[in-house]
Amino acid sequence: MINITGQHLINGQWLNNGQSTFASANPTTGQSNSWNFFEANISDTELAIKAANTAFKKYRRVSALDRANFLDAIAHEIEALGDQLVEAAMNETALPQARIQGERGRTCGQLRAFAANLRTPISPVFIDHAQPERQPLPKGDSRLTQIPLGPVVVFGASNFPLAFSTAGGDTASALAAGCPVIVKGHPAHPATTELVCHAITRAIESTKMPTGVFSMVQSSTPAISALLVEASDVKAVGFTGSQRVGDILNKLTQARPTPIPFFGELGSTNPQFILNEILANQPQDLANTQVGSMLMGHGQFCTSPGLVIVEEGKGFEQFIATLTTAVEAAVVGTMLTKGIAQAYLTQLDQLISNDQLTLLGQGNNGEGQCQTPAALLRVDAKSFLADNTLSHEIFGPCALIVCCKNQEEMSDIAQSLTGQLTASIHGSESDINSSDDLISDVMQHVGRLMFNQMPTGVEVCHSMQHGGPYPASTAPQTTSVGSLAMNRFTRPICLQNMPQSILPAELKDDADVLKIIV
Amino acid sequence: MINITGQHLINGQWLNNGQSTFASANPTTGQSNSWNFFEANISDTELAIKAANTAFKKYRRVSALDRANFLDAIAHEIEALGDQLVEAAMNETALPQARIQGERGRTCGQLRAFAANLRTPISPVFIDHAQPERQPLPKGDSRLTQIPLGPVVVFGASNFPLAFSTAGGDTASALAAGCPVIVKGHPAHPATTELVCHAITRAIESTKMPTGVFSMVQSSTPAISALLVEASDVKAVGFTGSQRVGDILNKLTQARPTPIPFFGELGSTNPQFILNEILANQPQDLANTQVGSMLMGHGQFCTSPGLVIVEEGKGFEQFIATLTTAVEAAVVGTMLTKGIAQAYLTQLDQLISNDQLTLLGQGNNGEGQCQTPAALLRVDAKSFLADNTLSHEIFGPCALIVCCKNQEEMSDIAQSLTGQLTASIHGSESDINSSDDLISDVMQHVGRLMFNQMPTGVEVCHSMQHGGPYPASTAPQTTSVGSLAMNRFTRPICLQNMPQSILPAELKDDADVLKIIV
Repeated sequence: MINITGQHLINGQWLNNGQSTFASANPTTGQSNSWNFFEANISDTELAIKAANTAFKKYRRVSALDRANFLDAIAHEIEALGDQLVEAAMNETALPQARIQGERGRTCGQLRAFAANLRTPISPVFIDHAQPERQPLPKGDSRLTQIPLGPVVVFGASNFPLAFSTAGGDTASALAAGCPVIVKGHPAHPATTELVCHAITRAIESTKMPTGVFSMVQSSTPAISALLVEASDVKAVGFTGSQRVGDILNKLTQARPTPIPFFGELGSTNPQFILNEILANQPQDLANTQVGSMLMGHGQFCTSPGLVIVEEGKGFEQFIATLTTAVEAAVVGTMLTKGIAQAYLTQLDQLISNDQLTLLGQGNNGEGQCQTPAALLRVDAKSFLADNTLSHEIFGPCALIVCCKNQEEMSDIAQSLTGQLTASIHGSESDINSSDDLISDVMQHVGRLMFNQMPTGVEVCHSMQHGGPYPASTAPQTTSVGSLAMNRFTRPICLQNMPQSILPAELKDDADVLKIIV
Repeated sequence: MINITGQHLINGQWLNNGQSTFASANPTTGQSNSWNFFEANISDTELAIKAANTAFKKYRRVSALDRANFLDAIAHEIEALGDQLVEAAMNETALPQARIQGERGRTCGQLRAFAANLRTPISPVFIDHAQPERQPLPKGDSRLTQIPLGPVVVFGASNFPLAFSTAGGDTASALAAGCPVIVKGHPAHPATTELVCHAITRAIESTKMPTGVFSMVQSSTPAISALLVEASDVKAVGFTGSQRVGDILNKLTQARPTPIPFFGELGSTNPQFILNEILANQPQDLANTQVGSMLMGHGQFCTSPGLVIVEEGKGFEQFIATLTTAVEAAVVGTMLTKGIAQAYLTQLDQLISNDQLTLLGQGNNGEGQCQTPAALLRVDAKSFLADNTLSHEIFGPCALIVCCKNQEEMSDIAQSLTGQLTASIHGSESDINSSDDLISDVMQHVGRLMFNQMPTGVEVCHSMQHGGPYPASTAPQTTSVGSLAMNRFTRPICLQNMPQSILPAELKDDADVLKIIV
């Protein structure tokens, strides 16, 4: 068993300069946990950044193979934490055991996937050989590769205590890319954070990485977040969280003397478009699938389907009736924190008291302070389009059914969408073949478009794109999940006339990588 | 001969709603040209944006092959403008005939290069086939491609009236990517701009593209620039110009309700590091090459070498003496505009009156109002590091020689560099083999690193990277030159379980493109 220190991990040491503390709560019981965690102060934070910057001078020259071994070692050490990690995460998040175990598997799988990609790169390098005889001017030898940006700050996310937190997606891809990482632990799961840090420390030691390549500070105050993203030695930020906080941090990164990229995932309603023929044929299946997907993780998935766009035709009434029955039967769920539960209840109250909306059904209430009911509401397309507050994400097990009178209204909704991580189109073959314009419109607003599939569940694979136009992502040209995610922490560099002896390994003439050569 | 209308090109029509006008000047004579150009007003600007947005719904579905034919047609029509274009550009910029002809060749070559890349894509698509039997969960079919961002505003640049203006790099890559373009013509060369627009119009007609795919407004006022970058239908901005103006426009794009990418190239001093053995062996060659490069285009290239870092050792005195002689012999040159010439003279005066700097030599003054002398100054490394104003770009034929006492000082300079488009390292084989740390430090600050080559001249090829950390570029993860430049105007989208019949051409199973398949 690892003894929780409550301290920060800075340059390989557990320490604290500040003395004030905070505690995490068990959302199920509402009670504070027994551990206390120190609040990082300015000195802690600056030490972590300095260590990252020092480590970068070495880490940027660590070979891809050695970085792969480091990532594999982190995965191994996370698994070696065993039940202690699972129990800490369950305790701090109220997520069930199977979910935490699955998330751990996904987190380790992601680390190993990046390791595999470092060993066998999937993106080509570009090489233009010299043409000394070219007229009117000779052409030099030039070669294009990627170099790491520098130290990266990653903010732990409340809803994925493992996969989008300490050793989650952005950390894994930044380390894969050659960037040191400073994690700002999420205050809702500090013990989980600390345990994962112990695993990373062991991996740093066993693979002999520079100690400052990974640091972590615990903090529940905005001032430390601001200090981290404004530090001149920090070169990029990864953030998954609310649009309100994300916008604030993003503005700080852009107001710096030297702006840096801010990779923020700030919310998505993941619209589900249900076309006519499939609605007529399968109204009950569609309704049950919708409710099942929106209840996963008690609606706290980034890809939770919060908006359903459907035309009032054959099957419509049965679809609505089945939805209503299913949501009313939903067992109560516990949200991640008291603050998140209260924000959900406040938003739900606003929707219910909105004259333009009808409450279709609501699940059980429960009595725990973090327990919230599932809910479904309906609104007509015109009212939806007239009130842009209705297009905002509601974080939790709630969906809005937007009822269209005709295809034109459905098309208006597709064109008015804000940026989304995902959308789905549900349709028969004939539905889909007659929906060219709708599909083209929806594509412009999403990072991932699915057909006859629900959005919950994000595959870690080469072709994944997790990110979409703002506010789904503040950097829609990059992804936070999938093999190409590490590219967000690198930038291209052209090396011209560089001697073979000092070329990066992947650019040498004899490198065994995918090359595009002219 | 084309009759210059002085109007804006909006949705295929030449028109003007506003009545106020401006004229361009001939920098050589200082006289205003005879043409008058209408200042765009709000109505003109909004019409252009609306036309682009309407055109986008069609243009985003135009095939890559048809876009390739469109780009080729633009190149053909630019060449068909013949001497009229060359004369107009010479008249408005004072750039010599050979340079304008060369730049025209480069501009057309760039359009044709993108066309070739559209016909034979150089980047892979990623395909994950479905695994319906996978445990514990089946895997869906997912495929990753790129889609265009939407209407793009491109600001014409003063120093490249063809290659970075109306049909220049950003316009060519945006059109290649599937994005309509609205050009804000640079007020220093409006006749050149209008002529190129006539060529584009002919290409739109001959290849039957939507008329709104390209519009152009003439303006010399900041208000129209702001209107363009703040318009909700504009989805990206391309800008090459001063850091002052670029920062203002970038801030506007980030303050929008939905921020958009701002691809700004804002300045670079392109440092030249000269190592010891080569300095001892070739001091005169190095000096003459430096002066030759900094005088190209009278120092108005974005890659002009404005900073030379050298150690005081064997060859140093001869290097300085040769530099001085060469710059004093430099013939006077004419700058692009009176404003640019005056800004250069003001900056040069400040440098000369700075006690820490020594004027090594100065070229002839000339008498034209846009004529300016070349100049070389020296400063010691400590003084350079102590005054960060010395690291700013001086746009014109001026360079600062930074003299280091030892390798440590040279290393300090490398580490303190602001973002640069390029840098060069000049060294013998032994110099280079013993400079690992220096090379690694310089790489972190540049988009392109050269060995024993001067930076002026940017190849249009697959491996080019034109862009670097801020302020060289506001988007260092993208390039403005080279085959990959079109990627800045697209974003990835994952299509999951999409029927073969409606998949984009490049994602179909039978597509003849480079595929990474799992």
